[in-house]
Amino acid sequence: MTNYFSSDFKLGILGGGQLGKMLLYNTRKFDIYTCVLEASNDAPSKIACDEFHLGNLMDYDAVYNFGKQVDVLTIEIENVNVDALETLEKEGIKVYPASKTLRTIQNKAKQKLFYIDHNLPTAPFTRFAYLSEIEDAINNGGLAMPFVWKAAQFGYDGNGVKVVRKLDDLKGLPSGECLAEELIPFKNELAVIVARNSSGEIKTFPVVEMEFHPEANQVEYVICPARIDEAVAKKATEVALKVSEAFNHVGLLAVEMFQTENDQILINEVAPRPHNSGHQTIEASYTSQFEQHIRAILNLPLGRTDSKVGGVMVNLVGAEGYTGNVIYENIEAIMKMDGVTPHIYGKKQTRPFRKMGHVTIVDEDLNEARKIAEEVKKKIKVISE
Amino acid sequence: MTNYFSSDFKLGILGGGQLGKMLLYNTRKFDIYTCVLEASNDAPSKIACDEFHLGNLMDYDAVYNFGKQVDVLTIEIENVNVDALETLEKEGIKVYPASKTLRTIQNKAKQKLFYIDHNLPTAPFTRFAYLSEIEDAINNGGLAMPFVWKAAQFGYDGNGVKVVRKLDDLKGLPSGECLAEELIPFKNELAVIVARNSSGEIKTFPVVEMEFHPEANQVEYVICPARIDEAVAKKATEVALKVSEAFNHVGLLAVEMFQTENDQILINEVAPRPHNSGHQTIEASYTSQFEQHIRAILNLPLGRTDSKVGGVMVNLVGAEGYTGNVIYENIEAIMKMDGVTPHIYGKKQTRPFRKMGHVTIVDEDLNEARKIAEEVKKKIKVISE
Repeated sequence: MTNYFSSDFKLGILGGGQLGKMLLYNTRKFDIYTCVLEASNDAPSKIACDEFHLGNLMDYDAVYNFGKQVDVLTIEIENVNVDALETLEKEGIKVYPASKTLRTIQNKAKQKLFYIDHNLPTAPFTRFAYLSEIEDAINNGGLAMPFVWKAAQFGYDGNGVKVVRKLDDLKGLPSGECLAEELIPFKNELAVIVARNSSGEIKTFPVVEMEFHPEANQVEYVICPARIDEAVAKKATEVALKVSEAFNHVGLLAVEMFQTENDQILINEVAPRPHNSGHQTIEASYTSQFEQHIRAILNLPLGRTDSKVGGVMVNLVGAEGYTGNVIYENIEAIMKMDGVTPHIYGKKQTRPFRKMGHVTIVDEDLNEARKIAEEVKKKIKVISE
Repeated sequence: MTNYFSSDFKLGILGGGQLGKMLLYNTRKFDIYTCVLEASNDAPSKIACDEFHLGNLMDYDAVYNFGKQVDVLTIEIENVNVDALETLEKEGIKVYPASKTLRTIQNKAKQKLFYIDHNLPTAPFTRFAYLSEIEDAINNGGLAMPFVWKAAQFGYDGNGVKVVRKLDDLKGLPSGECLAEELIPFKNELAVIVARNSSGEIKTFPVVEMEFHPEANQVEYVICPARIDEAVAKKATEVALKVSEAFNHVGLLAVEMFQTENDQILINEVAPRPHNSGHQTIEASYTSQFEQHIRAILNLPLGRTDSKVGGVMVNLVGAEGYTGNVIYENIEAIMKMDGVTPHIYGKKQTRPFRKMGHVTIVDEDLNEARKIAEEVKKKIKVISE
């Protein structure tokens, strides 16, 4: 048994953003020695780790040299140099998620093919090497609009996804590898976070629901548990477990899914790390997703995943029309509301739609939490000086 | 309104121990810029703050020079230079708890006199300038044994308190200022944490119970809520609120009390900061005591203080017979139990009875949490390599 709690053990984290920062809080609780690699000296993680290393996550040498200094290596963002991870694995470093898992997930086309190969439900799609090939396919009748264009790589936070209803919608999109996915009307977007340690112990968090703004078509609330039929929740959990089994991952796997009009479950995409759909676990669950990820990658027993109370999460994004030094308008007003906890990520500059933090609202009664969340959303505004 | 969340605001903390470390986690959530003053370079707080300053907390210049650099100054330990705090207050730094409050609390004799002056219930006592005066008083019949000897200053974690049943028991005690308190048989030791911000908003956490080991006469479990009659809980809360009112403190005030055989409530002592009797709030309460202290000293609205679930806290202290590099034996076994979260403070060396961490056990059913706590206590052992 490795004695993580009192030895020279070192945990490495690739990426120093807000997810890494929240992950680090939980390593402090266990007094685990941590090293972070990150390209920016302003990273939120900087003051929460034992060692902060500056370096580009996509650079082979930076990742390799960093990884050689730690015992277990994990990520808080998928866009890292996977070749370096593969070498590190060969040289005995424990890398979770594994390079193989990351390679499949990093490329959305590969990820979709993985689901097809493993007989896992996902929306039909076609893969294209260049954007221009999509245009050709439309012109020669091989592809019908509307469809969902997705960049194969480097999409993040909704970037890299666009509904294409007319040829004009393709303008300005990146020219590289992409896919066109059938636009399937859905009732709900759901997510399940699966945790797995290297001994094979598996636990799932409750199914959450992403509630969309009726007009803006943007996720407004993550609601835990999802307000759906038990049979649908069961099906979504089963699909998530099958995805987890197919990847055979170690650590968290957040599985985003669509519940179609006829209650089919289709996999949208996965993230092999703590995820935006699990932030409410900090306040609502017996074990937070961050603690669970650490437990999993250190092969510790997994914690309880059920909820103490109902939880709703609201993302704090920069308001339109404001760029510069951030101000959280009315933050004191929302802190006056029952069960409200703001999480400020520590980015000094805001810009429209930049993810600046999140707010969790918990209550014994989920409907009450949902109501308060609406008040929070109306009240707080991320603006600039 | 001070914009704590996005300005040049600096929060100073005197002391870099485990309480400071847990306090700092919560400042990270709000992205508050923090500075810590601490004499030891090995302090647990070191990697959780923005600025770490080395200096002796009892040294006037060290505290003054540190305090001048921050906007709000708080403590995680009472033994700090109060003269420096007084000067800082005069020069416009917000110091919470105030120097006046700390001066009263630092000296247990003064603290007891404060209760008498404010007509607050506490066990009868006599004050002595030197230990030798106690001996004289016993010899000339002015003081009857048994009684409780308490050092007036610098007691910590049960040091500085001793039941004296015979003259011999006085041997080896510090020679300085002390008091002799009537030994009153009690049913329960209770505690209530009161939070107050500078606008005067006040909230109390539920009454907790310190369950003692039947033989060792040592606190084994902190249980939240206390398993006592509602009327007793109400009385204890009222007494705590009166103490809070008398001190007119800003921040937390942990009020330790005795429930006597005839259900009287007597004040034992107070701490104007996060306290061992409130650690279970991290997992059990809507708002942790640490977040609440920050809310209070920054004059933010206070959070909900009720519990999501039942909570039991077990201190992790160094086992007898072990000194050296610490090992947490069976920590993985306790992490396998439901609702169990270990908090490791990060002290590298253990010695008998040294406080090395704590474990929280939460469950919907408090009795179930209490049962699991007993298993935890049996299983885990803080030993050395």
